[in-house]
Amino acid sequence: MLTFENDYAQGCHPLVLKKLCETNLVPQPGYGADEYSRRARQLIREACRAPEADVFFLAGGTQVNAVAIGGLLRPWEGVYAASTGHIQCHEAGAVEFTGHKVLPLAPSHGKIDPARLRRELEGFYADPNHEHMVFPGMVYISHPSEYGTLYTRAELTALSDICKKFRIPLYMDGARLAYALAADNDVTLPDIARLCDVFTIGGTKCGALCGEALVFTKGAPEHFLTLIKQRGALLAKGRLCGAQFEALFEDGLYFELGRSAVALAMALKEGLLARGFALFEDSPTNQQFPVVPDALLPELSKSAAYSFWEKRGDGASVIRLATSWATGPEDVEELFKVLDNLRGQG
Amino acid sequence: MLTFENDYAQGCHPLVLKKLCETNLVPQPGYGADEYSRRARQLIREACRAPEADVFFLAGGTQVNAVAIGGLLRPWEGVYAASTGHIQCHEAGAVEFTGHKVLPLAPSHGKIDPARLRRELEGFYADPNHEHMVFPGMVYISHPSEYGTLYTRAELTALSDICKKFRIPLYMDGARLAYALAADNDVTLPDIARLCDVFTIGGTKCGALCGEALVFTKGAPEHFLTLIKQRGALLAKGRLCGAQFEALFEDGLYFELGRSAVALAMALKEGLLARGFALFEDSPTNQQFPVVPDALLPELSKSAAYSFWEKRGDGASVIRLATSWATGPEDVEELFKVLDNLRGQG
Amino acid sequence: MLTFENDYAQGCHPLVLKKLCETNLVPQPGYGADEYSRRARQLIREACRAPEADVFFLAGGTQVNAVAIGGLLRPWEGVYAASTGHIQCHEAGAVEFTGHKVLPLAPSHGKIDPARLRRELEGFYADPNHEHMVFPGMVYISHPSEYGTLYTRAELTALSDICKKFRIPLYMDGARLAYALAADNDVTLPDIARLCDVFTIGGTKCGALCGEALVFTKGAPEHFLTLIKQRGALLAKGRLCGAQFEALFEDGLYFELGRSAVALAMALKEGLLARGFALFEDSPTNQQFPVVPDALLPELSKSAAYSFWEKRGDGASVIRLATSWATGPEDVEELFKVLDNLRGQG
Amino acid sequence: MLTFENDYAQGCHPLVLKKLCETNLVPQPGYGADEYSRRARQLIREACRAPEADVFFLAGGTQVNAVAIGGLLRPWEGVYAASTGHIQCHEAGAVEFTGHKVLPLAPSHGKIDPARLRRELEGFYADPNHEHMVFPGMVYISHPSEYGTLYTRAELTALSDICKKFRIPLYMDGARLAYALAADNDVTLPDIARLCDVFTIGGTKCGALCGEALVFTKGAPEHFLTLIKQRGALLAKGRLCGAQFEALFEDGLYFELGRSAVALAMALKEGLLARGFALFEDSPTNQQFPVVPDALLPELSKSAAYSFWEKRGDGASVIRLATSWATGPEDVEELFKVLDNLRGQG
Repeated sequence: MLTFENDYAQGCHPLVLKKLCETNLVPQPGYGADEYSRRARQLIREACRAPEADVFFLAGGTQVNAVAIGGLLRPWEGVYAASTGHIQCHEAGAVEFTGHKVLPLAPSHGKIDPARLRRELEGFYADPNHEHMVFPGMVYISHPSEYGTLYTRAELTALSDICKKFRIPLYMDGARLAYALAADNDVTLPDIARLCDVFTIGGTKCGALCGEALVFTKGAPEHFLTLIKQRGALLAKGRLCGAQFEALFEDGLYFELGRSAVALAMALKEGLLARGFALFEDSPTNQQFPVVPDALLPELSKSAAYSFWEKRGDGASVIRLATSWATGPEDVEELFKVLDNLRGQG
Repeated sequence: MLTFENDYAQGCHPLVLKKLCETNLVPQPGYGADEYSRRARQLIREACRAPEADVFFLAGGTQVNAVAIGGLLRPWEGVYAASTGHIQCHEAGAVEFTGHKVLPLAPSHGKIDPARLRRELEGFYADPNHEHMVFPGMVYISHPSEYGTLYTRAELTALSDICKKFRIPLYMDGARLAYALAADNDVTLPDIARLCDVFTIGGTKCGALCGEALVFTKGAPEHFLTLIKQRGALLAKGRLCGAQFEALFEDGLYFELGRSAVALAMALKEGLLARGFALFEDSPTNQQFPVVPDALLPELSKSAAYSFWEKRGDGASVIRLATSWATGPEDVEELFKVLDNLRGQG
Repeated sequence: MLTFENDYAQGCHPLVLKKLCETNLVPQPGYGADEYSRRARQLIREACRAPEADVFFLAGGTQVNAVAIGGLLRPWEGVYAASTGHIQCHEAGAVEFTGHKVLPLAPSHGKIDPARLRRELEGFYADPNHEHMVFPGMVYISHPSEYGTLYTRAELTALSDICKKFRIPLYMDGARLAYALAADNDVTLPDIARLCDVFTIGGTKCGALCGEALVFTKGAPEHFLTLIKQRGALLAKGRLCGAQFEALFEDGLYFELGRSAVALAMALKEGLLARGFALFEDSPTNQQFPVVPDALLPELSKSAAYSFWEKRGDGASVIRLATSWATGPEDVEELFKVLDNLRGQG
Repeated sequence: MLTFENDYAQGCHPLVLKKLCETNLVPQPGYGADEYSRRARQLIREACRAPEADVFFLAGGTQVNAVAIGGLLRPWEGVYAASTGHIQCHEAGAVEFTGHKVLPLAPSHGKIDPARLRRELEGFYADPNHEHMVFPGMVYISHPSEYGTLYTRAELTALSDICKKFRIPLYMDGARLAYALAADNDVTLPDIARLCDVFTIGGTKCGALCGEALVFTKGAPEHFLTLIKQRGALLAKGRLCGAQFEALFEDGLYFELGRSAVALAMALKEGLLARGFALFEDSPTNQQFPVVPDALLPELSKSAAYSFWEKRGDGASVIRLATSWATGPEDVEELFKVLDNLRGQG
């Protein structure tokens, strides 16, 4: 069975596992004070060219979003997100559980359009009743977005400028950041650190067993460790994330595994287009969203695992095919054969 | 200065005040166990033809919405509302503060379209990832809606049927219910009690100093008094609301003051249309939403208080003019004169 | 039946009701922008000699505690209270519902002992694990306490100094403040405004139908109106509280009704002691807590309403007898007769 | 440096790591649907002799407590805990963050005394004002307690009976359960499954890199997976916990590493007593709490890591020494030598 259903089907990259094995018996202090976490934080600060940054390691994506967003917003504030954003759709109301509203914005290719954001903020403050409304207190973006799309440096700069003008932080959910950085796009990790106030560097979907690095580029909020503890997100053995991120950020592994997955995704995309499949979005990253006739799906699922995305009215469906560090060129080739057979039969 | 800015500019209806004065010195138990609250509950049960109903009196509209919605939803559930609904827009995130998400639906004339609701619910359960999403746990409607519009009995029945099918309660926010019941519409108070699981009968905007009656047609949830207390909504002197609702529901005052305000609103509407003003929505209730040239507004505001609703792109704005028990026919006549003068000058 | 069960059995003081009647038909803006609220705020600032103070009017005691405490605490903070404090015992977990812990301290006569508070704060910061604990973020005191006792000016100064040293606000719950100010004690309203950061001036239990004034002596926190709205505590007809507090604070009514009730309570206390009843606490305020043989209670309850406080192991119980503005000297005399008869029979 | 400061200083037991390595490259579905989690759940059900039990794997102890307690309590309920309990003292208010109060009970050797619990519950329902109070909705116990002590089967049965009578669940925090099961005590894992409604089997402090098994002996609450997701506790790679618990529960490793640590702790205890050190509590588990003269601590800390527990007034302090799977007999011998040298110098 081919494995294209997501980017977290296997455990972790072998070099990450190696680090866990090598460090396993060394006694370390708990709660993130271990030497691996310390070194990983330093490697991340260097990769971001953000020497002032504070970095925390949390176990998962929904968790890090809820802790960071819920922890930074003040009681009367909510967070803007694309109405397709992960926090709005697929985190079971984790932000609302912390008492804060997600303020949905109509998306443009899965992204927030800077012009729309500006209009929304201006409209809020122009409304004579805005004291009866949730104040906008943050902008949440995902990069890559839930549809695999990316912000350009110009777009990110525009969002950053708007946030600065309205004095609210710009937060980037980088659950799949490795694939954004490896794609054909002009945004670098130092750009992100410069333009966002807070962002995450995803480990779980980029080669780790678990773990997201939460980066505050201008330093952490007061007593943030206690806040992490309060929300059940402080690992006693902080070394588990620390060692993994040390492995990911020494010798550039994080970037390398992003490049490998994206190269294969681009080959996959080309092959899909060549075979006449339309793409739901033009994604430059590791997730591809072909439109597939419903009639082919039962047969396809016998040979290749994929994720069902949405039914269209026209006898076809959008599916997701994802590559990862564990995908090889032979997997893509094999998938093409499967597709060719299917279409031959169809 | 003419008073059309809202329906809560004055204190309470004189008969309500009379009741407060007459009962003032009689000692009563606290927290809703007083005889006025008991009698008011009984009068409401009779008016609703719902002998099993449990009734609580809370002080205000945002409060009663948050306590009822937050109290009824289970932790994994959210509440559907029109994206123009009061809980989504103008309650400062009160529902989210209780930990629950408002699930917005595109509105139709300020209302939830039953067909859209059904599609949304079916789509939710058809989504293979719905366990990662907020479960729909209630439907919130306002009647009249925020645009003065009303559900017909057929629409309300359709919504009720869908809710029954999906086993979620239908909640009606009746902050201005007196005006809905007095309008040219086929929904009666017993209809509401029959078709909704929970609803409010608004006092604050319908003749009381404060107070909303919260009606559970099939009996209250367990320990609801404690829940009200926990959320800061239990009045020590429950008699304050009890006596007011007793006055509103003995001798049909609630219905009478609704009729008076709606009759004047219909006269107002007719006069506005006759004078060539377009209406943003065709409202059969006490709130009217004329489109007025921006150039006229400064002069209008010298003679009549109104509420600004929204700027349009075309040099005109939507304003709200509201009638209430305190509005007299002479106020409407006087407003017409003001408008005639304005247009003469324009 | 004599009415000693509490201080909120009747409606409001006749002068408060008179104000509501006189102002009833005057149109006013909503949400606390009415002229009565404005004047009441000014009168309170003057009575407190705190010209910089911001004042908000909320409907009830549990509500104002939860909004103020939950609104001021930062996410990682909790609030110290005597373990007998109202927020710890009798508010159904309203503070915890806002996400914050009440940190109980062993009380001394219903009060927090400054020395104990200091030890507790020093112990917290000395604990090497305190980042895993709830940070102390406020001190809550009630004055009078739940047992009718009062802080002296020296005690209040000591608490205030400790709070300043540890940079946390001192919050006073003044649900029955009128009786504290009228008692034989050296703390004045300006003292309270000088020594506390936030405090309430109770209306509900001191002559109003509803309403507590929340006073921030150094100015309100940012966007506090929105916070009040979010927590369901913003009255549309803010005039309801505004007019009542205007009546209470013009011509010194608040102080006068406190004096009347306390004078009668002192007569009551003297009479109880003269009749050989022990007192559970030596209360200088309007609540008295005699120890009464259980055998007398059924008969007593036929003539006088009282509150049951707690059963002791020795065949006697503590009950509460409260005076208020509605109590007359004849009520106390009548109660003495009842007690004399009971003891004659006993 | 000797490692006695806690039981989570190293990574995971070698056999646990081996399992992670062996399974690393096998594709698996996410969110706990992997085959290792399935097998681990089955092994746990068998070890508990609870074939109906539902088992979830969460990453850490504070997290699992907050999700389970906050998820099971109804809005008006709180949870009883010893005032020394972990949820009351050392979880940064995680339970309160979910909106619920911890109801502290005076402890007996770190445990809840059944007689006291019964009195407390009876007192609550006897209080005429209990509707204004937080309802008791659960009993939380830790086993071993925070002081290393254990409930006997008789005590656990008594607590269970009281909970049944009052219809509230009994929850056991088993963060260090391996050491409880290996100690000289009559409570077995099937006893726990029979007498508790919910309990945890700690992995983090008993040989895993992370992970706590949450066991609902009579089946899970509705939509519990969504609740876990909402609170940020659902791991995408559920295999991380699944594989570790599979390793811990196949071939009895969990029990074996508990026995090893407890045997060494008993040797340690004996050696401490033989050397004249008093013990703060008589702990039969892996944590020992000797009272050590303050003068010896600086020198001790040069050779052995320990945890500081509390200063006493008499020139001595309580410290914690913990054993784990990673402790060897030679470590205990070496510690004795260090202590002998210290005392020789002292």
